[in-house]
Amino acid sequence: MPGHGGNLDLALQRFGGHADDWIDLSTGINRRAYPLPGLSTHAWTALPLRSDIARLHRAAREAYGTQAPVLAVSGAQSAIQLLPGIAPRGRARVLSPTYGEFSHAFSVAGWDVDEVSDLAALAGADLAVVVNPNNPDGRRHAPDELLALASRVGRLVVDESFADPTPDLSLAREAGRPGLLVLRSFGKFYGLAGLRLGFVLGSAADIASLSAMAGPWPVSGPAIEVGCRALLDRGWAAATTARLQRECVRLDTIALSRGWALVGGTSLFRLYHTGDAAAAQAQLARAHIWSRIFEKNPAWLRLGLPGNETEWERVAAALAA
Amino acid sequence: MPGHGGNLDLALQRFGGHADDWIDLSTGINRRAYPLPGLSTHAWTALPLRSDIARLHRAAREAYGTQAPVLAVSGAQSAIQLLPGIAPRGRARVLSPTYGEFSHAFSVAGWDVDEVSDLAALAGADLAVVVNPNNPDGRRHAPDELLALASRVGRLVVDESFADPTPDLSLAREAGRPGLLVLRSFGKFYGLAGLRLGFVLGSAADIASLSAMAGPWPVSGPAIEVGCRALLDRGWAAATTARLQRECVRLDTIALSRGWALVGGTSLFRLYHTGDAAAAQAQLARAHIWSRIFEKNPAWLRLGLPGNETEWERVAAALAA
Repeated sequence: MPGHGGNLDLALQRFGGHADDWIDLSTGINRRAYPLPGLSTHAWTALPLRSDIARLHRAAREAYGTQAPVLAVSGAQSAIQLLPGIAPRGRARVLSPTYGEFSHAFSVAGWDVDEVSDLAALAGADLAVVVNPNNPDGRRHAPDELLALASRVGRLVVDESFADPTPDLSLAREAGRPGLLVLRSFGKFYGLAGLRLGFVLGSAADIASLSAMAGPWPVSGPAIEVGCRALLDRGWAAATTARLQRECVRLDTIALSRGWALVGGTSLFRLYHTGDAAAAQAQLARAHIWSRIFEKNPAWLRLGLPGNETEWERVAAALAA
Repeated sequence: MPGHGGNLDLALQRFGGHADDWIDLSTGINRRAYPLPGLSTHAWTALPLRSDIARLHRAAREAYGTQAPVLAVSGAQSAIQLLPGIAPRGRARVLSPTYGEFSHAFSVAGWDVDEVSDLAALAGADLAVVVNPNNPDGRRHAPDELLALASRVGRLVVDESFADPTPDLSLAREAGRPGLLVLRSFGKFYGLAGLRLGFVLGSAADIASLSAMAGPWPVSGPAIEVGCRALLDRGWAAATTARLQRECVRLDTIALSRGWALVGGTSLFRLYHTGDAAAAQAQLARAHIWSRIFEKNPAWLRLGLPGNETEWERVAAALAA
């Protein structure tokens, strides 16, 4: 199974402490979560109604600026699990390095998988995957470039899990056209990864196929109610985008003053060239700050953004030591 | 898509009113839900940890009285969506009439599906499905009968979604043996269907396959915390089982005095022979009580149990009218 951030179990095993003492910056999950609204009894007790799910779909279309057919799923990861079933097994190409679960899911499902390093090399695939902006290095592709690519592959999957703060990068509004699928994550930008909510936007036929695979109740009642409220709160989204952008500069300043170089990132995480990432991770971990390192790139360390002033001070102190 | 209870949208369209005015007895979901505990921030904000999921698995084993490998999923329905991927497409046989999603999911996934009416006719299938006790008619099969059948099919799936009140019927403790898979629903007995939580028990190899299909975060943080608490509360389960058994007698008494006949049922729902179920459904619906009827059996009407004294009085009055 691919490695992931958010594996705080490993941090506790190796460096001790209680989960509550740790600042988990090993993911790109916003640590200042959308404030949880009160939930109705219905959300917990009843099977989600079709009208509940339709309301969530409308909220997602509004937030993502699209009229495309949409399917709510239990996190963007759920969409990744479903995708290999959308067409007969064939050749999938994944623009890499990126989030490891795409190659893994397609391989497990019996597809041939190539990991390629530039966009042009995706052409000719039965299904191509681009994460935009990319995790972990923040690499970006202009919508026009991706649309040109879409016509040269069977299906193009664009994972926009980290695109909330950069709507100009998004292909959501183009997602109704055949052969294009756009994935969105709810939990990362809204800081509610435990809720398990994400979306697929695509052609009517593809969304119908994915919906049949996902079954009649693909999301929970709490996810529907929280999602509807949060997605329609564009004021919170705008303020959060502005805050995240400011705080990226703050984190980069701390990291650069330590002698690390910025590889790239999004407004939700930053990737640094550290020399020896395992040593840097261990140093942070002794201060109970967890980070993400990468087997294939032993100099890379990825950090999410601290959530409050106390956390910022602990991170600055740990990196100054 | 198969028909379902819980489709209150349809009731509102046809008979008006607001969802809150209705008593939805169209499902077998316990209307006196397990009291929701307070949830940690971690449950909402963080990706579920492997240790969180392991804790939920231990609670499920304890509740279901088994040492078998287990996988928590987003409702028993999620398990049904995954099952067709557990083996190469072949011949599935489903003991029928029963919950419609089994035949549907296997057909959509390209399996040949036979619906058969007695247990012996399942023999020889690559995969056989028995819902025990059965929905909607409450038909029961002794564990020994099912174990004998297991050796005559490729895989036997026993859906125990309604077995919580009748643990003696359960095959959970046998579920480690190759070729046997047991599904459990959390939401029905605990009255928390919106939470989306269920379990598959099976051999280590089958659970590993299903886990790979379900991905790294198959359940939400709230489902993990509520599930752990509720599954270990055996006092609540015992009291609820006793209450449900008493209240089945009460509902049967009302129905029989109206001239209906009991077809069967479980402690969570009752199936009645009504003469004209569509007319009976409409009569209840005018009192804003929703029920489940069945296209293939126009005399059958299924009712869940009212949740409190006010609901009981409304049901009794509607049926006396």
